[in-house]
Amino acid sequence: METKRFATALVALTLAASPAKAQDPLPSWNDGPNKQAIADFVVRVTREGSPDFVAPAARIAVFDNDGTLWSEQPIYVQLAFALDRVKALAPQHPEWKTTQPFKAALDGDMRALAASGNKGLAELVMATHTGMTTDEFTKTVSDWVATARHPRFRRPYTDLVYQPMLELLTYLRANGFKTYIVSGGTVEFMRPWTERVYGIPPEQVVGTTFVTRFELRPDGAPVLVREPKIDFIDDGPGKPVSIARFIGRRPILAFGNSDGDQQMLQWTAGGTGARFVGLVHHTDSTREWRYDRQSHIGKLDKALDEAMAKKWVVVDMQRDWKAVYPPWDR
Amino acid sequence: METKRFATALVALTLAASPAKAQDPLPSWNDGPNKQAIADFVVRVTREGSPDFVAPAARIAVFDNDGTLWSEQPIYVQLAFALDRVKALAPQHPEWKTTQPFKAALDGDMRALAASGNKGLAELVMATHTGMTTDEFTKTVSDWVATARHPRFRRPYTDLVYQPMLELLTYLRANGFKTYIVSGGTVEFMRPWTERVYGIPPEQVVGTTFVTRFELRPDGAPVLVREPKIDFIDDGPGKPVSIARFIGRRPILAFGNSDGDQQMLQWTAGGTGARFVGLVHHTDSTREWRYDRQSHIGKLDKALDEAMAKKWVVVDMQRDWKAVYPPWDR
Repeated sequence: METKRFATALVALTLAASPAKAQDPLPSWNDGPNKQAIADFVVRVTREGSPDFVAPAARIAVFDNDGTLWSEQPIYVQLAFALDRVKALAPQHPEWKTTQPFKAALDGDMRALAASGNKGLAELVMATHTGMTTDEFTKTVSDWVATARHPRFRRPYTDLVYQPMLELLTYLRANGFKTYIVSGGTVEFMRPWTERVYGIPPEQVVGTTFVTRFELRPDGAPVLVREPKIDFIDDGPGKPVSIARFIGRRPILAFGNSDGDQQMLQWTAGGTGARFVGLVHHTDSTREWRYDRQSHIGKLDKALDEAMAKKWVVVDMQRDWKAVYPPWDR
Repeated sequence: METKRFATALVALTLAASPAKAQDPLPSWNDGPNKQAIADFVVRVTREGSPDFVAPAARIAVFDNDGTLWSEQPIYVQLAFALDRVKALAPQHPEWKTTQPFKAALDGDMRALAASGNKGLAELVMATHTGMTTDEFTKTVSDWVATARHPRFRRPYTDLVYQPMLELLTYLRANGFKTYIVSGGTVEFMRPWTERVYGIPPEQVVGTTFVTRFELRPDGAPVLVREPKIDFIDDGPGKPVSIARFIGRRPILAFGNSDGDQQMLQWTAGGTGARFVGLVHHTDSTREWRYDRQSHIGKLDKALDEAMAKKWVVVDMQRDWKAVYPPWDR
């Protein structure tokens, strides 16, 4: 009887050590059908013996970045970087004082900048993102990210990441998923900080790329020089193309927030087996921003129609998110 | 004293359970300076407190494929695939009977094929590798790899992988390295089988790519269509460019076997901290093939000069490898 009593005590001790209820992996999500849909999906694809079980190696999850993992208002962060770089580089380019779109950028004249259109923006990006080595550009981005401040919140841009999405990324990885960014932004603008901020390493960041040239410097040092020519625009129909090229497997989960993500969501949804397709809908004018069909940034129109028709998960930021940003926000 | 005697017995038991000497992780490598150099490098970068310690996330290792991980003689495996596909597709292309380079491929006339040059080879590759969806191409490759036989060894091509390199890949991964293929071959020809054969998943296979187009079929199904246009040639100076684009970190170890790998090796060697740069030198005319400076496949000339000048590791296949292929070979 001694033995049995000991065994009973051991069981009681073990039970006491484990919490009565597992900790909520998504504490910043309000209870409701969307939070439930996420949890249900993860259980379906990870439970051995489930008809929807997916082997860990095939648990690929892709996320847009701007507007899906961090704020993209009032202007794309990468554009804020480009404008700051124009100012920093202006002393070496006296001609910019009288040439558009550089004059507009230097004067902070957003109306004139907008008037320069996509061509003008492309000129700004080329002038500030190319013409240096990859190592030099990485350092410039790291320095800027460490010091620049968002105009509304007066905090580093990397503080404007969505706490509920950080929890989702962590939750997925804890369940064997490999998490990727698939962004319209340029790859080298994201890679210096995504590992620290999102836990996503450089090799899992896919985005728009510039042509790059290998070169041996006169001293024999090999460098990669960024050329003022777009290699591939990772937006819209470009996203599934990039996913195939970089990852080589079809994702089973995809999250976006705009029409530029529509084809990535279609491609993900089009695979066989269980799929999770979600949109972040910016509905919170107080804590973040409220915009969709008419917005010049992150326009969400056709993808919203398709999401509603196909019953994809549409996250209502105001209703579904208990918190928007990490704890600095409270 | 009871307690102490028990503890002593426990320690003795534990010691008996662990082998006196750790098992050799590279049993197919003969002892010598090259095997020693590999082991020394791995210890230097993985031992905590070592001045050359590299965090696991930064332990990126890149390998060429043809001639580095598997045999590339008498013709590149991908060319053997293309020739077989020309035969399989010939009934749908009656014009091939009278048009070069297809006629040469159908007749098995290697001299005429060689005379068609790179332009002819490119035509063969386009006609057999593009014009279908990515899913269709993957299935074609998988079926071919399962049934095709190497002309000399009469075995599946995937049996012609180098046992010592398989051991090296496993050894590196066991030490926290992330192993990548960076090949001049096309990505989608490798991805269907690299995980099974090398333990390298699709997302860690980098190579030459074709332009791909996203398309919604009339029934709404999304597909990716492979177009007859090269997107990027991942050879020579293209290799470091691809490494930067796909991986976004500089490797600390690189292995190649030909001049097409030279810039990848330079790029790897050019980083700060401990680096390992190696070449497989095909010196074994009996067990494999013997070729280098004059070969039309896997020409190793300038890279061999640089390796000797810079004291990179040059693996002598005949001298350094106890076995060339996996156990079917013995």
